[in-house]
Amino acid sequence: MNSNSQIALAVDLGGTNLRVGVVDEIGQVLESQSCSSVKAGKNLLVTLGDLLERLAENSIRPNHELKGVALGIPGIVDGSQGVVYQSPHFPDWDQLEVLSYFRRRFSCPVIMDNDANLIALGELWKGTGQGLENFLLLTLGTGVGGAIIINKQIFHGDSGFAGEFGHVVIEQDGFHCHCGSRGCLEMYVSATGIKELILHAEDLEKETFLKKAGQDIDHLTIERLYQLTLEGDTFGHVLFRTMGHSLGVGIASLVNVLGIFNVLIGGGISAASDFFLPAAEKELSGRTYRETAKRVKILKCQLGDAAGLIGGASQFLWK
Amino acid sequence: MNSNSQIALAVDLGGTNLRVGVVDEIGQVLESQSCSSVKAGKNLLVTLGDLLERLAENSIRPNHELKGVALGIPGIVDGSQGVVYQSPHFPDWDQLEVLSYFRRRFSCPVIMDNDANLIALGELWKGTGQGLENFLLLTLGTGVGGAIIINKQIFHGDSGFAGEFGHVVIEQDGFHCHCGSRGCLEMYVSATGIKELILHAEDLEKETFLKKAGQDIDHLTIERLYQLTLEGDTFGHVLFRTMGHSLGVGIASLVNVLGIFNVLIGGGISAASDFFLPAAEKELSGRTYRETAKRVKILKCQLGDAAGLIGGASQFLWK
Repeated sequence: MNSNSQIALAVDLGGTNLRVGVVDEIGQVLESQSCSSVKAGKNLLVTLGDLLERLAENSIRPNHELKGVALGIPGIVDGSQGVVYQSPHFPDWDQLEVLSYFRRRFSCPVIMDNDANLIALGELWKGTGQGLENFLLLTLGTGVGGAIIINKQIFHGDSGFAGEFGHVVIEQDGFHCHCGSRGCLEMYVSATGIKELILHAEDLEKETFLKKAGQDIDHLTIERLYQLTLEGDTFGHVLFRTMGHSLGVGIASLVNVLGIFNVLIGGGISAASDFFLPAAEKELSGRTYRETAKRVKILKCQLGDAAGLIGGASQFLWK
Repeated sequence: MNSNSQIALAVDLGGTNLRVGVVDEIGQVLESQSCSSVKAGKNLLVTLGDLLERLAENSIRPNHELKGVALGIPGIVDGSQGVVYQSPHFPDWDQLEVLSYFRRRFSCPVIMDNDANLIALGELWKGTGQGLENFLLLTLGTGVGGAIIINKQIFHGDSGFAGEFGHVVIEQDGFHCHCGSRGCLEMYVSATGIKELILHAEDLEKETFLKKAGQDIDHLTIERLYQLTLEGDTFGHVLFRTMGHSLGVGIASLVNVLGIFNVLIGGGISAASDFFLPAAEKELSGRTYRETAKRVKILKCQLGDAAGLIGGASQFLWK
């Protein structure tokens, strides 16, 4: 306790929740706070900056050495330029200079990356990805995030946009997606996608289910769906199986493209993996060449909500 | 002519044609031979070895220094282990030790890779890929081949299987594919896929077209289809547009996954690109985020049938 301890601040900005935390050099989250992501456009940056400053004031001790601040942001993010081009949950963000704003407010180094990329780095440092050279990661939450780890590093592509696994098309004339495309994986395997599946279910089944859930479609949570399925609801089982089928199709495409065999699954919906993974694995093995099918492994993430914070901090603290 | 000249031998084994050639250090094909790929299973290796030896005897001059032999093989190929696990056009190849066979027959170094990977290396050295750090390549022929160039090198994935772009699923319950999956890109944009589109066309249109072509569906060539389309056949135009639509969907998925913006198109069918590229480009731009759509470029390959030979040779001759 007497010697100096290196720490980092990290932000994980999700579509539903915003999380800030202090992480130490062994990857422990010392303090964290989360709140609902306010859809406040550019003001969100000010809110975020204030939250971070307060967290720093309250939790950084004299023996702490602050090494940096890491920002995980969903959407089309170019970390090297510091720009968020588009963020699905914050539609008025348009080529927003996020990094320079935080660099003005903090005197330590600040980095930014796509939120799923930082989650992958967290799992690589302290979670399921430890020891793996290459892996793919999908986060199943409000939307679908993705990351590609090659040689223990994030693969960013030409401008930081790599890993948009939610926008792999699995049905060329399928459900309309907010990105402008149709039949995107996200529209079948995220919270948004599962609601879309319910909307397209037969009226009687849908109505019976929603009555039982006691929630209308706009307020239905995945937690409630999970709970009803645990209690044996057959509509819930069918939904998760259908979702698993589509997830297997999407992962088959990813594995065929990248030839990377370890696929990590995280995000809030992964809590229900018992209900959808068997269908996904069956589909995946039927849709890949024999030698690929033998090698592919779907693995569960270990760090839960903390992964993005830990991954962000790893960029300053991992030796 | 007096000084020594370095050369390499290369094989490009396609589903329809087999090509062998001698390439010099500036990437010129000095001699080449091609013939129909005999579906002779393991005997094909003997035939190939004989062809290569004869080519070497007839075309290597005293001032030539043979640096190596490169083998481009379609399918699930692990070049580092020297094994062809599966090859779509040679179904009886099962974990075949191709590299060791050629290493026994030739005293110089021998390497092996997926055929599309060598085509990409050819375009990188002497074709459209010159100067590009990263690009994707699709070959549209009997099937669909794919390659990923990252930092001017082939990205192989965990075991050499990366780049199976033909098996990106664009329609989860679509046409059955020989790989065991359904709705694979290959079933919509290759010669096999175009025939599948004709098979599923309305009877009257299909019959009128085949009568005009003077060929039944099994013998219909893409050259004949192209010729009729050039002459203004509306069914041909619709076919190529439909194919272009699916190609755009597939490329959108690839670009969203990899964040790589230069996409090279080669293979026999690319000769008809005037008929399918506009549809592909329109689809692609509608199915990617604005910032991606701005940056993506579809580029035509330049080296034609010689690309695979040149790319194979580049592994020994490119300084």
